[in-house]
Order: sequence, then C-alpha cells, then structure tokens
Amino acid sequence: MNKVAVFRREHFNAAHRLHNPTLSDKENAILFGKCNNKNYHGHNYDLIVKVTGIPDPKTGYVIDMKILSDLISKEVLERFDHKNLNLDTTDFETLNPTAENIVIVIYNLLRDKIDNKLDLQIRLYETERNFVEYPS
Amino acid sequence: MNKVAVFRREHFNAAHRLHNPTLSDKENAILFGKCNNKNYHGHNYDLIVKVTGIPDPKTGYVIDMKILSDLISKEVLERFDHKNLNLDTTDFETLNPTAENIVIVIYNLLRDKIDNKLDLQIRLYETERNFVEYPS
Amino acid sequence: MNKVAVFRREHFNAAHRLHNPTLSDKENAILFGKCNNKNYHGHNYDLIVKVTGIPDPKTGYVIDMKILSDLISKEVLERFDHKNLNLDTTDFETLNPTAENIVIVIYNLLRDKIDNKLDLQIRLYETERNFVEYPS
Amino acid sequence: MNKVAVFRREHFNAAHRLHNPTLSDKENAILFGKCNNKNYHGHNYDLIVKVTGIPDPKTGYVIDMKILSDLISKEVLERFDHKNLNLDTTDFETLNPTAENIVIVIYNLLRDKIDNKLDLQIRLYETERNFVEYPS
Amino acid sequence: MNKVAVFRREHFNAAHRLHNPTLSDKENAILFGKCNNKNYHGHNYDLIVKVTGIPDPKTGYVIDMKILSDLISKEVLERFDHKNLNLDTTDFETLNPTAENIVIVIYNLLRDKIDNKLDLQIRLYETERNFVEYPS
Amino acid sequence: MNKVAVFRREHFNAAHRLHNPTLSDKENAILFGKCNNKNYHGHNYDLIVKVTGIPDPKTGYVIDMKILSDLISKEVLERFDHKNLNLDTTDFETLNPTAENIVIVIYNLLRDKIDNKLDLQIRLYETERNFVEYPS
Repeated sequence: MNKVAVFRREHFNAAHRLHNPTLSDKENAILFGKCNNKNYHGHNYDLIVKVTGIPDPKTGYVIDMKILSDLISKEVLERFDHKNLNLDTTDFETLNPTAENIVIVIYNLLRDKIDNKLDLQIRLYETERNFVEYPS
Repeated sequence: MNKVAVFRREHFNAAHRLHNPTLSDKENAILFGKCNNKNYHGHNYDLIVKVTGIPDPKTGYVIDMKILSDLISKEVLERFDHKNLNLDTTDFETLNPTAENIVIVIYNLLRDKIDNKLDLQIRLYETERNFVEYPS
Repeated sequence: MNKVAVFRREHFNAAHRLHNPTLSDKENAILFGKCNNKNYHGHNYDLIVKVTGIPDPKTGYVIDMKILSDLISKEVLERFDHKNLNLDTTDFETLNPTAENIVIVIYNLLRDKIDNKLDLQIRLYETERNFVEYPS
Repeated sequence: MNKVAVFRREHFNAAHRLHNPTLSDKENAILFGKCNNKNYHGHNYDLIVKVTGIPDPKTGYVIDMKILSDLISKEVLERFDHKNLNLDTTDFETLNPTAENIVIVIYNLLRDKIDNKLDLQIRLYETERNFVEYPS
Repeated sequence: MNKVAVFRREHFNAAHRLHNPTLSDKENAILFGKCNNKNYHGHNYDLIVKVTGIPDPKTGYVIDMKILSDLISKEVLERFDHKNLNLDTTDFETLNPTAENIVIVIYNLLRDKIDNKLDLQIRLYETERNFVEYPS
Repeated sequence: MNKVAVFRREHFNAAHRLHNPTLSDKENAILFGKCNNKNYHGHNYDLIVKVTGIPDPKTGYVIDMKILSDLISKEVLERFDHKNLNLDTTDFETLNPTAENIVIVIYNLLRDKIDNKLDLQIRLYETERNFVEYPS
C-alpha cells in the first residue's frame, strides 16, 4: 500500500541576525549585508511539517493532527516564538540562524519525538519569497 | 528527456463527520473529538491534481488543462461538491472520511480515467493548515 | 485625532444548508439549488473582525488583540466551530444561514461585548470567491 | 467625477518589542506579555498604501505606481527594513512600536511627500491574522 | 436596518499596453516605460465586485451570487478574458487601458445591469502588488 | 549529510498566444481555443526556483538568496518581463509558449549559470489554478 503524506502549518515570530562568530565583523558585514544588522531584525516564520506513513485502519489517520499540532507547539513554538534566536535560544548560540540552519534544527527537534516508521520533512518560510525544505 | 509535471487546482464544499462505524460512540468521541459531531461540520476542500509526463511535441502540453479540469469536475466535483460525504456518497458509507481516506478515493477515481503513461498525485487541503498528499 | 482600525482574523468550520422553513421544499430547491441539499454541505468560514477607535496612550492599543481573539473564540468559535449551523445552534433554528444572515448574527454577538466607544465591522468569507461585510 | 483609489503593496522585515518606557518592567510584562521579551522578536510587515484621486486624463494614472513605489522605498523601507524599530530608529525611541503606532508613523512620513489633493490611507499587516489601518 | 455588502471574486487574463494615442511615441515611452512595449504584455486580472443592499427576507440574499457571477461572466469576462484590451475591444480603442481606466469601464458595464437600489463598487488587481478600486 | 532545498519566488508579466506554426490556423484554433487568440492575451507568471545542496559551513547558505535573485532577474526577468513571448523573444520564435515549454526554457537558462553540484528545479504558475514544474 502506498503511503500518504499529511501536512500541518504553524507559525512563529522571532528576531535574529545572520552572524558567524568565528569571522570578523567586517567579514560578517560583507557576507550578510543588512541581515547582519547588530540590533537584529525579524520575521514571521511559517512552518509546514510533513509526516508520511500508512493510515491507521482504525482511525484513518497517518497521525492525529491535534497531537502533531500540540507536539510542534511544545517542541518548536514554545522554544522560538517571540524570541531572539541568537540571544534567547541555546540552538543558535554559536550556529548562524540562516533559514537552512533553522530548518535542520527544527527537523532534529521533531525527529526525536515522532515514531520512526513515519517519515518527516520540514518546510520553513522566512518570507513569502524565501523558503527552505529539509531533508530535500 | 525529463518529464514535466502539470498541476490543476479545483475546489468543492462538503459536510462530513469523522466516525468509524465499527467502533462504539464513546470510542468515536474519544478518537475524533469535535470532528465526530453527530450533526456534521464542513470544509472548503481545495484539490491540486498533479499529472506528470513528457509534453506532446505537437501541442506542447503534458495534458490539455481544459480536458483535465473537465475530468476533475465530472469525476470528483459532481460527486462531492455541496454533498454530505457520509450520507450522500457511496464512497464513504463505511469508510471514515478523513482527509487521508478522501485523497485516496479521489486518486482512485482519477487514476482510472487518465492515461497510464502519465503519473498522478493528488494534494487535498481540508483547511489552510491541514492538508494531505497521495501517493507520497 | 483620527481613529485607527485594528483587524483580527479567525476561522471556523461548519455545516449548513440554505433553507427557508416558511417556504415549500420545491420553492427552497428552486431558490437555493445545490445549497439546499437536505443532508447539508459545509465551509471553512474565515472571519475578520474590525474594531475602530483611538489608541490608548498607555498601551498604544485600540484593543488588546489577545483579549479580542479570546472574545471571538468564546462568543463565536465555541458556538459555531465544528457545528451544523441549522441543527446545533439556536441562532439559525428558523433563520436561513446565508452568509448575510451569519455575518449579522456574529456582529450582534460581538457588539454586545465590545465597548460602545469602539466601532465594529465584520467580514465573513464563505469561500475565497464569496464573502460579505456588515455593517457596510 | 468619482475618484479612483490605487493601492501599492510593499513589505519590510523588522525586530521590535512592545515596551512603554514610562512604566515599570513589571507593568510592561503584564500589559504586553511575550511581546515585551527584552531581547525582541520580529515580523514580516506587509504594507498597503492607498492613494485616492481623479485619474490624470493624459496618463490615466491617479499616481504613477513606479513613483509611489520608489517613494515608499525611500521614506519607509530604507528607514525600517532589517532594522530594530526600538533601537535603530528615532521614531520609536520613546513611542511604543505597536502596529497602531507604526501605521500612524508611516502615514505621517508619506503624507508629507504626497500631493495634498490626493487622499492617503495605510494598512499594515503585522501577521496574516493581525493588521491595522489608518486613518480609519 | 443596516445594509450588508456581498463580494464576488472573478478573474480574466488579458494582454495590453499602456499607450495614449494622442501623444508621440517618444512621450509614450517616457510616460509608460516598459508598460508601453509595442508588442504588449499581459496580466491575470483579479476582479472583486461588491454589491451593497438590504438582504431580501425571503432568501436572506442581498443578491443571488450565482446570478451575480453569471452577470460578471456575460458582461465582463466574455468581453475581456483571453483578449488584447487595446486591439480586441471597443472600450480601449482610444482609452488607455490603465488599471484606473479598466476599473471604471467595468463599473459602468455592471452598473447598467444591477438594480439601482443596490450600491456597486469594483476592485481590480493587476498584480498582487498593484490594485485599484472604483468608486473610492 | 542530507541536502537542504532553498526556494526563491519571483514574477514577471508577459503576453503570449498558444500557436504551433507548423500547423494550419484551423488546427491551431481547435487545439488551443481562446488561448490561440491572434492578438495575444497575458499572464502574471509566478516563478519558484528551487536550488538543492549542502549548506556552506561558513555562511550557513546553500546559495546566497541575493545572488540567486539577481541571477533570476538577469537571466529570466529581463528577458521575459513586460514582453510578448512570441514576438519579443528568440526562445519562442518557433517554440509554442505553453507553460510546459516556458518552464523548460527557464530551467535551461538558469542551469547554465548555477554550480553543477547544486540541483535545480523550476515551478511556474501561469495562474493560481494552472502551474507546472520541471524537472518533475
């Protein structure tokens, strides 16, 4: 039987700046331009969590969307919503919070909590025009 | 030559309730919560049909979008639009109309009518925040 | 000083049928077509609540959006979300649940609970293509 | 002759925190909750500028959208995009950057630069679910 | 009793160029830039028709949306969809097809066909970022 | 290490007609209907460019989105924006500008300019309801 993918969209609002602490301020300014602004800027991050598996014949669900939504809230939104990613989280103390790095961090947070027989993929919108997906 | 995928978006409005008739009312209430409401609730279902193949050199089309749209209307929209999925269709007489089960039913309805040299995938939005895809 | 309008978007999913109980079944069928389907159909209703007033100099708020959102949840969403408007509510026992009538009912529910020095207007999307606003 | 309204949508990404410097930290925390986070959070602000007037018979334009877009870039986006509203701007040194206050500031910045025979109104989206308009 | 506004969204795809035939080619090029391209360019025009009135107590409708949609199809879409506005229509033989002029033409086409006790307003999206409304 | 996909959305407005110059006018009219209109029609084309690879540990980027955006502007938007695809481009002098053929042309234009260790896929929206993707 073929698998079905289910998707749940959530969002959080956060501040960040792009900055690699192992590089000089000048190098950071060249590499990241206005995204390196020392006082931060921010985004409405839109998150789509894709979970793939065989629907349970009893429920007709791949995963209960209420449970998935609560899990995302607990593991991701409580951690990042209305936070400064660089200052308020341990995840980005030294890791540069590019969309690519954020989506990998979110994947790892959720992968640990979702049954391994289910596949997981995360899409993260930084803006309507810039977004990322992991694993690709 | 690589294949091109073409997508057509359509929509229908339907009532449903989540209910597994082989379980007790109590079990259904626990499993499906407010989605089990005995008098039904409803959705604006948004449907994206993806057809993949090699464009015909004469037309430049993988499939004529007018023909695809008419096919979706005839096979899916006439069947489900402005209907109660549990009461007005044979498809969900005993099958629980979760998004997962609806998307599989729609896939099977269309798969029978589309040339086998073309691949088919269906995405179904139950809401902006909850959607499914089959096959994954 | 000019007023500022603030808007809060919420949504609910409900079943309904268009039916005027003072008319015959035949007249209802002619007037409302497939929207009169006896077993109901449904929608994802999107609701935009507009509140207009002078921002409080202390908070910079016309109204606290958290309080407004909680009020809409309590007065509107708990009443209509995952319900059958015709069967599960007193509001539409005899009133035909057209978008026009629903938006007036929602306005009246909220008008009673919002300070009279604030203006109120409701927009209700039945689908992406059909929506209403009250008062106009 | 009736007037025509023209609308131009732009956006900027910024960090902010809600904070009234004339109040204690405790009062700020109570009033603004997680929006008061001392390390800031952020948003993708979407801006719709509405200009109303009689189309010029020579061009058929109320205002040249290229000129309007350049004006918004110069007066608003260069000032706020990829900035911390509290720290990097003079506008919100002491003014609490609620959506209500931001939209009034933007209105005043643009009002000075647009011909007085044209009416002006600004809509500002802080998120998809929270937005404001001025004058109302 | 207050009035209710109802809105119907439709769309059409058309080619056009901005060109004032009473001006020289050089003046047109300066005024309209790339929009003056002699071989035309095009848009997906999105149209929102707003009709305002008192709901009929029998139907609960301000206007039957099916009738409104059919009227828009007949008067506007058949006239402009998949057409070159400058070459294929009499409306823009000499009138420059700016968004401002198109929205006035559409208003006049529909105003003649809609009961005078109902108010009418048209919004026309040329792109997601540029749109117009008439009367304002 | 798994790859990350990054996406950049851009858009352009163009006129076109569907027409295969090796067929008779009658055959073209039958195959393409109103899309064959001899005076052209047009679209707001929305383009999503997906680039997949391993993020650079120094920047945290798969590819700098500013560089990607500039590349799309130079190779695609300058070529097609505010143009007549049939008359103003060499790409569609003899090739029928269906969405399928346009997306392949865009892929080839960008594939030549993007590092071969990065995967590339293009999605092109002709309308909200019709879109294509290559390679599939």
